[in-house]
Amino acid sequence: MSEWRKDPVGRDWVILAENRADRPNEFETSRQNRTECACPFCLGNEGQTPSEIAAYGRHDTTETELGWQVRVVPNKYPALEPHRTAPTDKGPLFHSMPGVGAHEVIIETPRHIFLTSELTEVELKHTFCAYRDRLRHWTQHSDLAYGILFKNVGQAAGASIKHLHSQFLALPMVPAHIKNTIDGARQYFDRRGKCVYCELLSQAVLRHTTLIFKTPSMVAFCPFASRCPYETWIMPRDHHSHFTHLEEHSLQKLAHITHRVLGKIENVLPVPAYNLILHTAPFDTRPLEHYHWRIEILPRTVTSAGFEWGTGMAINQVTPEDAAKELRELDYPM
Amino acid sequence: MSEWRKDPVGRDWVILAENRADRPNEFETSRQNRTECACPFCLGNEGQTPSEIAAYGRHDTTETELGWQVRVVPNKYPALEPHRTAPTDKGPLFHSMPGVGAHEVIIETPRHIFLTSELTEVELKHTFCAYRDRLRHWTQHSDLAYGILFKNVGQAAGASIKHLHSQFLALPMVPAHIKNTIDGARQYFDRRGKCVYCELLSQAVLRHTTLIFKTPSMVAFCPFASRCPYETWIMPRDHHSHFTHLEEHSLQKLAHITHRVLGKIENVLPVPAYNLILHTAPFDTRPLEHYHWRIEILPRTVTSAGFEWGTGMAINQVTPEDAAKELRELDYPM
Repeated sequence: MSEWRKDPVGRDWVILAENRADRPNEFETSRQNRTECACPFCLGNEGQTPSEIAAYGRHDTTETELGWQVRVVPNKYPALEPHRTAPTDKGPLFHSMPGVGAHEVIIETPRHIFLTSELTEVELKHTFCAYRDRLRHWTQHSDLAYGILFKNVGQAAGASIKHLHSQFLALPMVPAHIKNTIDGARQYFDRRGKCVYCELLSQAVLRHTTLIFKTPSMVAFCPFASRCPYETWIMPRDHHSHFTHLEEHSLQKLAHITHRVLGKIENVLPVPAYNLILHTAPFDTRPLEHYHWRIEILPRTVTSAGFEWGTGMAINQVTPEDAAKELRELDYPM
Repeated sequence: MSEWRKDPVGRDWVILAENRADRPNEFETSRQNRTECACPFCLGNEGQTPSEIAAYGRHDTTETELGWQVRVVPNKYPALEPHRTAPTDKGPLFHSMPGVGAHEVIIETPRHIFLTSELTEVELKHTFCAYRDRLRHWTQHSDLAYGILFKNVGQAAGASIKHLHSQFLALPMVPAHIKNTIDGARQYFDRRGKCVYCELLSQAVLRHTTLIFKTPSMVAFCPFASRCPYETWIMPRDHHSHFTHLEEHSLQKLAHITHRVLGKIENVLPVPAYNLILHTAPFDTRPLEHYHWRIEILPRTVTSAGFEWGTGMAINQVTPEDAAKELRELDYPM
């Protein structure tokens, strides 16, 4: 069983999860001629995963032969698990508690593919539908406070299994980093009476220099203070703080722009490797006028080093204006 | 010229430094049979670096044939440069200014070696002396607020040149991450009347479970909420907030324990890769009773992924108790 430990100097919580060391890493074991067909996420290998939580696309008339299009299962090597044990306080310096939470995997396709641009838009829509549904499900647990959804594509982005998948973790606290961002957004709202993200989105459309792609409902752009080359945010034009409020037609629109933009990013990187992260409001909050859900894509072309670890800041070698221009103008084979 | 940009939602500053993309990466170019003797940090190749700022060990009687033992030069591809230009404010959303600061390189040895355990203790003492002197020098610049010293060893830790070296950056602001840590330490002091780091150090010695190595003046241990396997802190037993106050005999003691502990870490890791970071108080502060300088060593055995980037939290697969036991008991060839 894993354990939450709090940094005594107030930085944040850390998860100690020894069981995670046991999970296979395809990027390492491929040297030992591990065959691709052993992939636990492929159609036909469903028995290799823990019992299915949900499946999507099983009844789509066009794809019935596939059985499912997107599948949600508990993580076989969970960092967190839903159980109720009294918190253990080890005194004023050392505060810890059992590894309460949830850790699930969203398998994005039955096919053994590694790039988001190879997904169909329907598979991506089902994936985002799973994102929304996992958040809706765990929002109801009063012990839990925040849900994070992300996917790691490529070895440099920390992926251990190549077959496209996302991960969901439900946490018993709102991470300090997220709190800080929401506080920053609230301060902006208090000062200027507007959602800072709505403003950033409008400016991206208006100035055009950091714009990558836009549709009537969504916008993709490189943020002003991009932390890494080709950092990309995808946001809805309408103000919404909670991803859980998304309806079917919005999921489809999100799938369309994300598919298009990740196609560009996967084509521009020498070796495709990135983290995609969904930022949404904490579980227990009503709609927030100062916060805005969004997808952040962080390409991993550079290894973070002592400066980043020591200061929490970033050094970025590509301006967002140059990155956006390249991505905007890129015409890749679809 | 580089540029500082502030995240509009208040996260922190980012450095945009396009010139950094031009610097060579030995880990990449080695595929092209780049010969090792082209190393700009080796004895005899001094002409390949910008003009020397300082050198140490030139007059040591035992090593005079080497010419120098440790050398400080400006970074050839600086992320920041000392110049005075009026700040540019691009409005309420977008705040930026020129890349003011300093960026220097500390070459830790004239020999072409890649591991800290291969340094002599004298070279390491000179290196720490350079750390102190660079901090002392830039502390006097009223435009600058904080100095960060770090070294990246190994490709997975973001090194681009293999020959052992450290980097120094002087920043015009205290990073939010550092401010947050110092605030946390002050809050602890306000509550309990003691330096939290002195307490952590005492507990490490007393409990012994997270202790790696101790001397009469210094202690090395794995912190309670270690963010990664084998995370190690080295701290002086005497309370000091500023590394600039260190005297000659303390530099020698620090070199001794660091040499010993990094020897253990370099032996325990399958592929040695780590960031070493010196945390010290900001430039403009008097001695702080609540803060304590320290060296943090972060081995890079795992690639940080979507969870870490999305939450700012960490998942660690090795408990600090297990890591410390292994490092404590490791007897490696010296």
